[in-house]
Amino acid sequence: MRAVTYQGPHEVRVEEVPDAKVEAPTDAVVKITSANVCGSDLHMYEGRTDLETGRILGHENMGTVAEVGSGITRLKVGDRVSLPFNIGCGHCRNCQAQKTGFCLEIGSDTPGGAFGFADMGPYQGGQAEYLRVPFADFNALRLPGGTEHELDFTMLSDIFPTGWHGTRLAGLEPGESIAVMGAGPVGLMAALSASIQGADRIFVVDQHADRLALAEKVGATPIDFSEGDPAEQIMEATKGVGVDRGVEAVGWQAHDHEGVEHPAGTYDTLVDVVRATGGIGGVGIFLPADPHGPDELMQQGRLRFPFGKLWFKGLSLGTGQADVKIYNRRLRDLIIAGRANPGFIVSHELGLDQAVEAYQHFDARDEGWTKVVLHP
Amino acid sequence: MRAVTYQGPHEVRVEEVPDAKVEAPTDAVVKITSANVCGSDLHMYEGRTDLETGRILGHENMGTVAEVGSGITRLKVGDRVSLPFNIGCGHCRNCQAQKTGFCLEIGSDTPGGAFGFADMGPYQGGQAEYLRVPFADFNALRLPGGTEHELDFTMLSDIFPTGWHGTRLAGLEPGESIAVMGAGPVGLMAALSASIQGADRIFVVDQHADRLALAEKVGATPIDFSEGDPAEQIMEATKGVGVDRGVEAVGWQAHDHEGVEHPAGTYDTLVDVVRATGGIGGVGIFLPADPHGPDELMQQGRLRFPFGKLWFKGLSLGTGQADVKIYNRRLRDLIIAGRANPGFIVSHELGLDQAVEAYQHFDARDEGWTKVVLHP
Amino acid sequence: MRAVTYQGPHEVRVEEVPDAKVEAPTDAVVKITSANVCGSDLHMYEGRTDLETGRILGHENMGTVAEVGSGITRLKVGDRVSLPFNIGCGHCRNCQAQKTGFCLEIGSDTPGGAFGFADMGPYQGGQAEYLRVPFADFNALRLPGGTEHELDFTMLSDIFPTGWHGTRLAGLEPGESIAVMGAGPVGLMAALSASIQGADRIFVVDQHADRLALAEKVGATPIDFSEGDPAEQIMEATKGVGVDRGVEAVGWQAHDHEGVEHPAGTYDTLVDVVRATGGIGGVGIFLPADPHGPDELMQQGRLRFPFGKLWFKGLSLGTGQADVKIYNRRLRDLIIAGRANPGFIVSHELGLDQAVEAYQHFDARDEGWTKVVLHP
Amino acid sequence: MRAVTYQGPHEVRVEEVPDAKVEAPTDAVVKITSANVCGSDLHMYEGRTDLETGRILGHENMGTVAEVGSGITRLKVGDRVSLPFNIGCGHCRNCQAQKTGFCLEIGSDTPGGAFGFADMGPYQGGQAEYLRVPFADFNALRLPGGTEHELDFTMLSDIFPTGWHGTRLAGLEPGESIAVMGAGPVGLMAALSASIQGADRIFVVDQHADRLALAEKVGATPIDFSEGDPAEQIMEATKGVGVDRGVEAVGWQAHDHEGVEHPAGTYDTLVDVVRATGGIGGVGIFLPADPHGPDELMQQGRLRFPFGKLWFKGLSLGTGQADVKIYNRRLRDLIIAGRANPGFIVSHELGLDQAVEAYQHFDARDEGWTKVVLHP
Repeated sequence: MRAVTYQGPHEVRVEEVPDAKVEAPTDAVVKITSANVCGSDLHMYEGRTDLETGRILGHENMGTVAEVGSGITRLKVGDRVSLPFNIGCGHCRNCQAQKTGFCLEIGSDTPGGAFGFADMGPYQGGQAEYLRVPFADFNALRLPGGTEHELDFTMLSDIFPTGWHGTRLAGLEPGESIAVMGAGPVGLMAALSASIQGADRIFVVDQHADRLALAEKVGATPIDFSEGDPAEQIMEATKGVGVDRGVEAVGWQAHDHEGVEHPAGTYDTLVDVVRATGGIGGVGIFLPADPHGPDELMQQGRLRFPFGKLWFKGLSLGTGQADVKIYNRRLRDLIIAGRANPGFIVSHELGLDQAVEAYQHFDARDEGWTKVVLHP
Repeated sequence: MRAVTYQGPHEVRVEEVPDAKVEAPTDAVVKITSANVCGSDLHMYEGRTDLETGRILGHENMGTVAEVGSGITRLKVGDRVSLPFNIGCGHCRNCQAQKTGFCLEIGSDTPGGAFGFADMGPYQGGQAEYLRVPFADFNALRLPGGTEHELDFTMLSDIFPTGWHGTRLAGLEPGESIAVMGAGPVGLMAALSASIQGADRIFVVDQHADRLALAEKVGATPIDFSEGDPAEQIMEATKGVGVDRGVEAVGWQAHDHEGVEHPAGTYDTLVDVVRATGGIGGVGIFLPADPHGPDELMQQGRLRFPFGKLWFKGLSLGTGQADVKIYNRRLRDLIIAGRANPGFIVSHELGLDQAVEAYQHFDARDEGWTKVVLHP
Repeated sequence: MRAVTYQGPHEVRVEEVPDAKVEAPTDAVVKITSANVCGSDLHMYEGRTDLETGRILGHENMGTVAEVGSGITRLKVGDRVSLPFNIGCGHCRNCQAQKTGFCLEIGSDTPGGAFGFADMGPYQGGQAEYLRVPFADFNALRLPGGTEHELDFTMLSDIFPTGWHGTRLAGLEPGESIAVMGAGPVGLMAALSASIQGADRIFVVDQHADRLALAEKVGATPIDFSEGDPAEQIMEATKGVGVDRGVEAVGWQAHDHEGVEHPAGTYDTLVDVVRATGGIGGVGIFLPADPHGPDELMQQGRLRFPFGKLWFKGLSLGTGQADVKIYNRRLRDLIIAGRANPGFIVSHELGLDQAVEAYQHFDARDEGWTKVVLHP
Repeated sequence: MRAVTYQGPHEVRVEEVPDAKVEAPTDAVVKITSANVCGSDLHMYEGRTDLETGRILGHENMGTVAEVGSGITRLKVGDRVSLPFNIGCGHCRNCQAQKTGFCLEIGSDTPGGAFGFADMGPYQGGQAEYLRVPFADFNALRLPGGTEHELDFTMLSDIFPTGWHGTRLAGLEPGESIAVMGAGPVGLMAALSASIQGADRIFVVDQHADRLALAEKVGATPIDFSEGDPAEQIMEATKGVGVDRGVEAVGWQAHDHEGVEHPAGTYDTLVDVVRATGGIGGVGIFLPADPHGPDELMQQGRLRFPFGKLWFKGLSLGTGQADVKIYNRRLRDLIIAGRANPGFIVSHELGLDQAVEAYQHFDARDEGWTKVVLHP
């Protein structure tokens, strides 16, 4: 089969690889219909991780079941499914506590497994014609058959639940206000999620006009940080009150508007604007160690964190990757009911053979390349 | 009346001051029977804050109602009451959301007011014969009359609820394990709270033998960090699993076992030992700015925080002073029912005139001076 | 001043009464700008309660502060305010736990007080020119000045929070489906609330075409129970799955479509259609005893409740009047932000002198008399 | 192998039956070391259900893994395991929401499956030498090897989690008081659970002196309802305040102290004694229909429920069988840590061949036959 493989920093290749197949009784093989390119693919693409050469990329996958193992009782060949980017065994303490992003038995050194991801187990990704899915009855989410809502449903594997997770970690309640740092795909999904949940006012902070325009589409107020300190802009817009909740959707490679890496900058803003007793949800990725980071602190995975202010305001902070399975069923139902349309962020639908070009444009943050979906 | 007043760094005085009196219809005046000295009094005593000369100290107060204003409907003269260290108006958004530690209308620049405390409004403290209590119907907790349980009840104004708050911020559930950093009064109260709530295993980290011995009294496993890295000790004791929850009960003046200020050290340990998906509650005080701090980061209220590891493990973090009123009613009932005995930590009961001596010994962390109660 | 007073079964009068005045330091007097007639006023109007002759009716009140007592610190003369129908003292155990509908010190035999209501304390109602408000700093919610959103804000005193409460008691989460029994004002507010909170599908059950048409306006699917068993209709519409949540918004005088009182009928339907593990919120009023009820069970306040089915399905049930203050601040902010428009249900705005006529039409359930607002 | 089989009303038999074996890749077979007789076995024993002749009884099972299917990855032969009485698939919406008592794919007409139980799927029970366990990686809870804590661990399959569930459905918080109806095994476990969770005061209502004596052992106050109305006794003991929470642990065959079936009696008491705003958890079994019930209402599964009083007090009610897997892991850890000893209720340990006698004595509620454990 054909697949997108990692070949080293800034190099991917579309090549012929061995077919995905059922290897255990609880496996299924899924024929991929949509596989998205994700911002976190870029961490690997840029060589900031130790992903091995030849691994198939792609953790945002959906398709139809092509084959099932002998221990599969729920999935049938032909079922249309969405596959959470995190892989869980379904049996361990964390999976059973619905913390499926931190599976203890999925084969990596640290809790949690994922498709096509550095340090998250040996699993191949789904930017390919077929994908092997372990513990498939547990992991796969069934979708209505056919081809309807393909671009909305393909957001269920990662970014829609991840944006939603940010709002839940922040503790958002209906009638509360929220600030989202970053108008990339995850930030936009956080804004969409906040809107569905009845947020009062939503601010989205970024410096890219095209992304800020998308934020406005979901009813958010755009804050362009190239035009001035975003904390001051939000405090002014709220008459000095600030917001109830905040979401960090940028991660450890945050830059200021002059292009300097400034990894604590987004949290500085949130700790400033979230009002005392409020909450912050962090879904942008930070790493325990970043050997290639620009300074010693970052190499140790540390931030110059405004902890004193956080503590004095009595803020809470929730962090970590989204446990997709907590959310994806209800988000699917919201899509079916016409109440959520996360596919609006898709800018490009391409064939698998156009993957190299897709990575180049997306990595360059080229104007208009908001979200790419590959259809193998 | 006589009262303990602040006179400058390392100097308090017991002197005659004007009587406390009813100044507003919703005030009451309370005759103090017990006023504790608290570790956070030492921050002021040591001159690390900008408390003005002449202010009466003391935020851990209890006594009997001596006089009530015309707008008081619930309290009667003679009622025995515990007074939460934080003062709330009862009407603002935060008070009505039970966030009484962050009252918006109590007169300080930042949310929250307290008796006898720097930067928490103009209120006098209770290390005195009498205390004026604003919004007294809202703030005072009624106790059974008489003198029974005096040393237990006097812990209701601050440290018992504060220790309990630590466990709630951490999200402790029955059957879970927890590590508490610091075996000072608040750390011991956190350990006691965890025990009452059905914790599975409780670790308490300190280096003072007398404090660790008290920790054992509430069923905790003592970890002496002068004998080796506390994270390693806890990981070994848990066969590499770590604990479900952690409480930080030391604050920004944490020292390592060689006496060097190491403000992120307690969080380093907690982020190491709390298992992925767990939670941390921070009740030790950190300040938004510390002009006299040992380095530039601390002067800005920043820590070299192990954020990457926190994020990767998906930990949650709750912070801030305890909203005493959320907890004190039920903790009172546990004392009455004989299920909680927080007074066990009291090492010294002294008269008001012995306050100077008490501050000196307590500030020196003299062996055996665990907790001092003044009886005016 | 002029006021609407109860004179006996099916008789109210607009008459001159003594002026409302400040009676305690924590009182305020409010000049009423809007006072709604509520379905629960009809219980008193119809003589089903023991309300004394001469009492001023009206528990859904808003207006501007005309006078404040000496102990008031927050409200100022001229403030525009909404007054929750339940009156709390702000100090008792229940008020401090945000259960302000069940105040223990407000002067009735059972927990809870209200304006102009049988068995809820001695307080006058607000269908009058002025209203005395006890513990006014605690009870009143400040609104933006002016006259904007008057019809939306006037729903904050009862029915919008009550409908919202139904969805919270039911445990509704975004992406879940819900059935609401009753398309009266409270049922419509429950449907609106569910929509704001991100409900997936909303069913509203009634038999009045005008009410069902309003339900459709908030995006709900109308179910007309005069056209067949509502449980069967909902099960068919959900392909046999049922709904996740249910709200009962009718109360103990529920009738079947032939006009026979059938007090357990709405719960029969909900227990049938809410799927196993789901939740039900009951906000329609039921009484501990109904001396004039049609049979012995009802006289004892008992229902022939389908408890076996409820238990076997593992359903949860939350009940009781809404603690308005938990919700009204955020609902106000949603109105200001343009995300909620509860005033859409108002059918008639009348002067105080038209109150007699208003009661007659509303009690007769005359077509089109959905909700009446009096402007004194 | 030998097993206890149902033969008709009041008749069980110990007989040779076909061996349990692996039938699907995700099955395991467990060699039973302890299988308890449960109060709900008596419903079947007495012929109140439609259990078919020949079915093996027993849903409270533990033992060691004897054989595993090809799709099992976690369990190993020799592992000591506790088996929740409810069987879940691990994949359906309810299992994934931790509602494993209401599995949608386990093969019965209504949600939920169980070992050896009427109307809960076709599964054999564990009062036998061996037991087939479907979806064994998901369902089995691993225990420390050896034989330690056998009598404590054997309570993890049902009654300890069920008693605990009662307190959670009731919403018990530390420092609150609780009343438990019934001092049978489940009621005693509810009292033990409340004690571990930091309950303030615990009342247990029954009329059997031996059971009430066991209740006192866990620190509860016994209330003997043969000595007077239990509601009055509890109101007197609480000076008219009542309790915060209640648990119903009797079920639909509740009798008054003269032996008359009085199925709403336990709820009457709870609705009387639980204070306004409190919560009730119902874990005693009620059926949707009881064809052999003593009157028409009971035959329809209805109660003369005091709904008006429940509503007026704003009580909440949680119901249904325990989702054992939510709780059993932490309860196991509490046993290992020495903080829970549920085995204290065992009165008889018998061999499989003594099962007939055990059923007779247990069904007769013979003095001293509190809880029987069979060791095959």
